[in-house]
Amino acid sequence: MIWDKERRSKAERMEKAAGYAKGKRVGTGEIIPFLESILRPGDRVVLEGCNQKQAAFLAEALTKVNPEKVHDLNMIIPSISRDEHLDLFDRGIASEINFSFAGVQSRRLAEMVAENTVKIGAIHTYLELYGRLYVDLTPNVCLIAADKADSNGNLYTGYNTEETPMLAEAAAFKSGIVVAQVNEIVGEGDLPRVDIPGGWVDYIVKADEPYPMEPLFTRDPARIQEAHILMGMMTIKGIYAKHGVESLNHGIGYNGAAIELLLPTFGDYLGLKGKICTNWVLNPHPTLIPAVEAGWVKQVCAFGGELGMERYTAARSDIFFTGKDGMLRSNRAAAQVAGLYGIDLFLGGTLQMDYEGNSSTVTGGRLSGFGGAPNMGNSTGGRRHTTKAWRDMAPLTGSMASGRKLVVQMTKSQSKYGPAFVPELDAVRIGRKAGMDAAPVMVYGEDVTHVVTEQGIAYLYQAQNAEERTKMLGCIAQGTPVGSMVGNGEIERMRREEKVAYPQDLAISPDAAKRELLAAKSLEEIADLSGGLYRVPEQFRKKSE
Amino acid sequence: MIWDKERRSKAERMEKAAGYAKGKRVGTGEIIPFLESILRPGDRVVLEGCNQKQAAFLAEALTKVNPEKVHDLNMIIPSISRDEHLDLFDRGIASEINFSFAGVQSRRLAEMVAENTVKIGAIHTYLELYGRLYVDLTPNVCLIAADKADSNGNLYTGYNTEETPMLAEAAAFKSGIVVAQVNEIVGEGDLPRVDIPGGWVDYIVKADEPYPMEPLFTRDPARIQEAHILMGMMTIKGIYAKHGVESLNHGIGYNGAAIELLLPTFGDYLGLKGKICTNWVLNPHPTLIPAVEAGWVKQVCAFGGELGMERYTAARSDIFFTGKDGMLRSNRAAAQVAGLYGIDLFLGGTLQMDYEGNSSTVTGGRLSGFGGAPNMGNSTGGRRHTTKAWRDMAPLTGSMASGRKLVVQMTKSQSKYGPAFVPELDAVRIGRKAGMDAAPVMVYGEDVTHVVTEQGIAYLYQAQNAEERTKMLGCIAQGTPVGSMVGNGEIERMRREEKVAYPQDLAISPDAAKRELLAAKSLEEIADLSGGLYRVPEQFRKKSE
Repeated sequence: MIWDKERRSKAERMEKAAGYAKGKRVGTGEIIPFLESILRPGDRVVLEGCNQKQAAFLAEALTKVNPEKVHDLNMIIPSISRDEHLDLFDRGIASEINFSFAGVQSRRLAEMVAENTVKIGAIHTYLELYGRLYVDLTPNVCLIAADKADSNGNLYTGYNTEETPMLAEAAAFKSGIVVAQVNEIVGEGDLPRVDIPGGWVDYIVKADEPYPMEPLFTRDPARIQEAHILMGMMTIKGIYAKHGVESLNHGIGYNGAAIELLLPTFGDYLGLKGKICTNWVLNPHPTLIPAVEAGWVKQVCAFGGELGMERYTAARSDIFFTGKDGMLRSNRAAAQVAGLYGIDLFLGGTLQMDYEGNSSTVTGGRLSGFGGAPNMGNSTGGRRHTTKAWRDMAPLTGSMASGRKLVVQMTKSQSKYGPAFVPELDAVRIGRKAGMDAAPVMVYGEDVTHVVTEQGIAYLYQAQNAEERTKMLGCIAQGTPVGSMVGNGEIERMRREEKVAYPQDLAISPDAAKRELLAAKSLEEIADLSGGLYRVPEQFRKKSE
Repeated sequence: MIWDKERRSKAERMEKAAGYAKGKRVGTGEIIPFLESILRPGDRVVLEGCNQKQAAFLAEALTKVNPEKVHDLNMIIPSISRDEHLDLFDRGIASEINFSFAGVQSRRLAEMVAENTVKIGAIHTYLELYGRLYVDLTPNVCLIAADKADSNGNLYTGYNTEETPMLAEAAAFKSGIVVAQVNEIVGEGDLPRVDIPGGWVDYIVKADEPYPMEPLFTRDPARIQEAHILMGMMTIKGIYAKHGVESLNHGIGYNGAAIELLLPTFGDYLGLKGKICTNWVLNPHPTLIPAVEAGWVKQVCAFGGELGMERYTAARSDIFFTGKDGMLRSNRAAAQVAGLYGIDLFLGGTLQMDYEGNSSTVTGGRLSGFGGAPNMGNSTGGRRHTTKAWRDMAPLTGSMASGRKLVVQMTKSQSKYGPAFVPELDAVRIGRKAGMDAAPVMVYGEDVTHVVTEQGIAYLYQAQNAEERTKMLGCIAQGTPVGSMVGNGEIERMRREEKVAYPQDLAISPDAAKRELLAAKSLEEIADLSGGLYRVPEQFRKKSE
């Protein structure tokens, strides 16, 4: 019996590829025949598309291999962010995809699924996808990106370490082939630091251009509206202060950005400094800079890097995880673990919520995936340490669980597309159309503890049953259909019972929710507050400059 | 404003320690004054006590530092396994402990808590403790163990990588000091492989003797009883086959060992090979060897190593994760993530269960902690991929969740200590006595989907409410108090509705549950089946040899 088929297969592939590599180094111009040598039909292939760092050069090369030689690949792409990722399916090179987030490619993906050009293995939250790499989606080939390599294959990822170690390890230790594209190859010992040991990496190739990077987590304060500010004030007072929330994560969006910018002003006015929002699991949001500078923040564990934040994070090593070289060290897998088990609150925006509190950003024909939200936005039954905030959420069901994570969903009660609260999520129909076993729900209703609209806060963790849950949502969506499901008397009762709070119940005047309250009103102001350490990304600079 | 206090503190400490180190290398005999130089009162200190690999030399040295210089340490010890771990508190060096598992030290720990000699920060599941290292328990000093180091501090951990990378990273990138004890220091380039990059490690010290290792996950088939075999047969047919469980974890114990040894016999007879139990997240259990050899197992992702399994795992690289050097690579953090998100079933034994299905191994004055069980034994609301087994567990509550993980708890209905099912867990009283906010429950009742006793299986996921849940438990604990809570008519109804199954309902004859059914009846037989690759550990060898 042969027990090392995988090793033999790897050796054969590497032998076939020998003509295109000197040691570990593959010639930039030889990447296509090289990939044809190391790939076999039906392979499981990780193609690094993280939020910040994409193996763009390898992705493009992969679209150019001969589909008669390489086909039916099962692609594992955490974040589908580039045209090439889906071109692979149009060209008959790949047939199945497993992913977490689709972003700008979400509409095309939905269309391709409808046309049977691509089969979705599953949509996962990041940590789930990483977990499966070690169980039943272990890759044969892993295509990753790094900033620099030395001749031994040691990798330096700069501040975008992200999930690269978790991806590479699954392949490296199961006879998979790990190929890293890098911006630069340096001499032995010349890396600023080693983020991934060279022993895990079989090949390095200098990309024809540095991997692209987008400022995905930059929110321009100039675009924060008064509704965001009002919701932020209510959240700070009616949720963070009420429960004493010290450790937390904010999802991407203007809702979180507004809160971050209100801490040093409104939060300070309430005397909350040092009492809430001290320990973060967060991408390096530029909008957190004013709170950091004002001494609000003890520590930030980052999933990835953020364009323009290099020098700032390096200069704030008491706050951010950094290497000996000074540069931020991010780690999406560790941060997702921290976000699941180590924090008391997740706050995120949603586009649509049903009357049970289920929410999804899968709307209007987009198969967007949810990235980290399903992991951050659920309360693990495995947690055993307690905090005040956690205990405040103790279940009413007779469970012995000592508490729950606070999961806060924010949305305006309606937008130009209609009411935010709907009887059935678009995701249900879209999931059915895509032939999915389960509707692509982002956060399940039973996990949501608080919903905030511009009208007020619904403290869903206090609902006695599903019916009351719906009515609590109705209280904060008056003027929309779900609002008509609750009468005035019931609204008054729920306000008295503190199951719902309107701004006046929190002694907050909507008139006070002005942009003047923001600690910075533009990215330029944030750059100033950072002492010039934060550099506003090109895309966000004023056109007149 | 100073933003790099931590870096400055690290530099000061390292300067103070300079006299005891040449480069990264600390003299074995100078470890005590060295530790006194790098430690400050109140520090958070990780002391590696994993399951398999303990920094025993560093632990002993730490007990000898001068408590006038070093005191009030907050110790982070994943597995409290050595006398020294608690001696630290008796000697006034440490005051608080954060941990996951206490094993043999569980009774002494409970006594010390009662005497106020030690303050428990919290009991965590492993992944939870790792998460907090990145949020609010970030270590100042991290004391770890490895097999070998080179002069640059690169570490080789052999097959016991376990959680060392996760522990070291949290310190290394937040200006903490990482000290590794190693069995051997080799020349540059002479490590079999690099498990942890040298840049993460500040100091290495050759231990006075190799770190000790116990065969914690070895269960001698000779001690498997017929009750285990009967329960195992029922589990294979009534749970694994019924739901089509392909990916799973077994906790430590004879229950899981019996199942592993029944797969190539009873499982084969049922025609289940290739249909169930193919993908495992599991320590390298020797009792899995017969199933591996018979071709049942596709892949195993290991938390840690196991004494005697070195050569076997190295020779089965298609099954186990191994390095280029051939040796197993384990990773407890990755395996816990895989166990949370990537598998369909967790099976574990319990000592005590209440009438709601809550279970705990905290009994009789032991503060044992639960290791990975709370993480493995809960169904994350963040999972989005589906399988048949998962979908079979779809909640009856109206949740949109597509399914649940199967969480199977096994126990004999009674033991010499009395009934397994009790109105209130001992853990409740013990937790209260220790002043804990929450009772130390291992797995919450709402997360348990199946309970198996020698009498039968209770399919708890089918319970309509808490009362029915209790009655289902009563059906499989006849002759004990909870058994009297259900009448014969109800038992018949629940058997008809397949909410409960007795052996005869599964066409299993208890008379067939004989030791002859085991694929191996002793560790020696397992060693034979492994072709001599598995080496029976000293402790398990027959005295006559």
